[in-house]
Amino acid sequence: MSVSTAAAAQTVCTPLPVLGRDVTVPLVTGGEVTYAALDYAASAPALQRVWDDVAAYAPYYGSVHRGAGYLSQLSTELFENARRTVAGFLDCRPDDQLIFTRSTTDSLNLLAQALPAGCQVFVFETEHHASLLPWKDARVTYLDAPRTPGRAVQTLERALAERDPQGPALVCVTGASNVTGELWPVRELAAAAHAHGARIVLDAAQLAPHHPVSVRELDVDWVAFSGHKLYAPFGSGVLAGRADWLRAAEPYLAGGGASRRVSRREDGGVDVDWNDTSARHEAGSPNVIGAYSIASACKALTEAGFDTLVAREQHLIAKVREGLAEVPEVRVLSLFGDDAPRVGVISFVVEGWNSSHFAAALSAEYGIGVRDGLFCAHPLLRTLLGTSPQAQGECGAPEATPGEKSLNAIRVSFGAGTPDEHVERFVTAVKELVANGAKWQYRTEEGRCVPAV
Amino acid sequence: MSVSTAAAAQTVCTPLPVLGRDVTVPLVTGGEVTYAALDYAASAPALQRVWDDVAAYAPYYGSVHRGAGYLSQLSTELFENARRTVAGFLDCRPDDQLIFTRSTTDSLNLLAQALPAGCQVFVFETEHHASLLPWKDARVTYLDAPRTPGRAVQTLERALAERDPQGPALVCVTGASNVTGELWPVRELAAAAHAHGARIVLDAAQLAPHHPVSVRELDVDWVAFSGHKLYAPFGSGVLAGRADWLRAAEPYLAGGGASRRVSRREDGGVDVDWNDTSARHEAGSPNVIGAYSIASACKALTEAGFDTLVAREQHLIAKVREGLAEVPEVRVLSLFGDDAPRVGVISFVVEGWNSSHFAAALSAEYGIGVRDGLFCAHPLLRTLLGTSPQAQGECGAPEATPGEKSLNAIRVSFGAGTPDEHVERFVTAVKELVANGAKWQYRTEEGRCVPAV
Repeated sequence: MSVSTAAAAQTVCTPLPVLGRDVTVPLVTGGEVTYAALDYAASAPALQRVWDDVAAYAPYYGSVHRGAGYLSQLSTELFENARRTVAGFLDCRPDDQLIFTRSTTDSLNLLAQALPAGCQVFVFETEHHASLLPWKDARVTYLDAPRTPGRAVQTLERALAERDPQGPALVCVTGASNVTGELWPVRELAAAAHAHGARIVLDAAQLAPHHPVSVRELDVDWVAFSGHKLYAPFGSGVLAGRADWLRAAEPYLAGGGASRRVSRREDGGVDVDWNDTSARHEAGSPNVIGAYSIASACKALTEAGFDTLVAREQHLIAKVREGLAEVPEVRVLSLFGDDAPRVGVISFVVEGWNSSHFAAALSAEYGIGVRDGLFCAHPLLRTLLGTSPQAQGECGAPEATPGEKSLNAIRVSFGAGTPDEHVERFVTAVKELVANGAKWQYRTEEGRCVPAV
Repeated sequence: MSVSTAAAAQTVCTPLPVLGRDVTVPLVTGGEVTYAALDYAASAPALQRVWDDVAAYAPYYGSVHRGAGYLSQLSTELFENARRTVAGFLDCRPDDQLIFTRSTTDSLNLLAQALPAGCQVFVFETEHHASLLPWKDARVTYLDAPRTPGRAVQTLERALAERDPQGPALVCVTGASNVTGELWPVRELAAAAHAHGARIVLDAAQLAPHHPVSVRELDVDWVAFSGHKLYAPFGSGVLAGRADWLRAAEPYLAGGGASRRVSRREDGGVDVDWNDTSARHEAGSPNVIGAYSIASACKALTEAGFDTLVAREQHLIAKVREGLAEVPEVRVLSLFGDDAPRVGVISFVVEGWNSSHFAAALSAEYGIGVRDGLFCAHPLLRTLLGTSPQAQGECGAPEATPGEKSLNAIRVSFGAGTPDEHVERFVTAVKELVANGAKWQYRTEEGRCVPAV
């Protein structure tokens, strides 16, 4: 495995260059090949621009907010500018708060902790566990998987109509499925939520890297996403939206930064006056590089233009879907059908193949990195696969013997750094594997399917 | 402000080179000077080695844990190796769990959420807010500031002797004060805690960057620290220690990775089977670069050797303390007295000077970055300054008019990347400012003291 020295001279046509585009990996069958990173939906590579920005800033890194030195002031300014840049990228309302978290999961857990007492939560079973599970202290209504976007709206409306109209309520919905890539009718769901006095949070983890997100146009109350899926893998995420619930909530973490003033009481106890700005939920030293890297990615995506990015991605999606359609053994997983608008996230199963086996062969024999499993969306996968809740299959690669019926799926996903060659190689590989079988033997080791040596 | 191109040729003697060592900053009085980063206790610069390791890895970054591709497997291996490296650095017990968090604040909030029901917590008022405040759901006993290490142990023993001996209890103590730099008698406090059936967590945020930390030798149950103070500012921190309370606790964040299996129930609800490994508290995609950077820093510090690092730092501490001792107007803040062992963190006030004014002049006229304020340890600062709990003064630079009596202090802190010249310049600057006053006019702007222009 090495970074090819000749690679700089190669012309690889992608809208935005990413780090690792020249990395080669060994094939089990001999030789090396450029790595095809087709697991963007889990973590995308860093944009070259993001890396360059971080590298340029790193020598100037300093303690933020409370340092008197030049670099502390510079870092504080960059951090707060990053907040404004990301708020602009999301087209937030002027009085929205934007909190830097560590990930979408963290953002939604923060919001879950900020729900008013007695809040009812409505969430489709089709959600990623990050948006399905954080609401544990609330009264949660899980909605069955709808088979059209219109049914999603109807299902939500019916559930909201039956709710106690007095108390607060929150709807949580994904913008683009992390399994099918299909877009959800966010604007319509937001309208339904608001019509019934509920609020709505958009899980944009899979949407923001592929599509413009306008908090104002979609009229969502909050939006959450992760840096590491938006080409900025430096440990930061975002929650942005209405300030009132956030201001009224207990601080997410207790510590410095969140606390404005701490005093011993005469009885020996401690009084705390908490901040009511974003700092309230950002206790501890902020991840400045993480926030700065997200802002850099937002700028790069905006400058490249989502019109261009979306058109290019639709071209790749068509290539993959048309290629897979030529293989009768392949079944692409879908809730909303072939015509649904979607981003570059496609899951499928291959008749007669264990998905872990198939994914392992794509890696070992073709240098293609995809994902297999249930994609942290177990109820949705069981619905799509038609398996029972009792069927095994884990978030990680499951215990599996090559050849047995798959209870999991394979997911291929891509984005602004993906050249045509990667998806072409993927389609060719699928066809060859289905037609000829794997060239190598595989075995299960620690729950993972690996080449036998 | 620029990175000096000639700087590579300079010989600056430090145990470990850091990023930004050649950065120059403008002086308000004209000209530029190499930036003297003396706010390590807030955030240390990245080690050059850490940066180089991150830069070498970045092209190979991939989605961890559940990706089938080569780079996903490589990244997963690096992430889990990082866990082992850091556990080794801390000299953990074989059955300890090590969880990557985002910071010390996050680590202690996680532990606070993992306390058994009815847990009593004992914490000195001298702690940083990160270790003082997270215990909100527990019964907390705040202990008065002790004036010797021996009194600390006696105070704790007395409090523990009065506790309900049946229920669980936790002591939280800092290893080295973020205000005075003084070392706390951790081993003795651990012995006292255990003698009374309590457990103990060590806040090593300020200790680990300066001193070897052995969980086994200190016999602490948990230890927490931050990457950004350990020369690895990529958004990660660590909590390591006993697995039992962590395994029994609710997952810190609900989401993917933490959940092993999620199913719809027949009644429409959702059943979750949570992991009981470190993954239980690491929901969401882990910050691989953050964890990897901490492991890199641990290796670099270990290879440099703490004997060398400590000896070198003591030499810098002596320079600063001897220099400050020559200025009668300077009062160094101390709990345990002149002979107490300490790390390179020194706080002081200057008679007749507002601390914010003094810190601003150090920055603007000498290119020295220190910190002013109450250092997120308000009760300790009020005890040390002799001010009342009603006195204003915030975590950030306070509203302050140059010349008025200071309610805050100035903190200078340094470490493995600090050349002699930085502390020499600092001592000279203190002497000149006290003797001659500031050369420039300053004013308060948005709560910060800045040069008037």
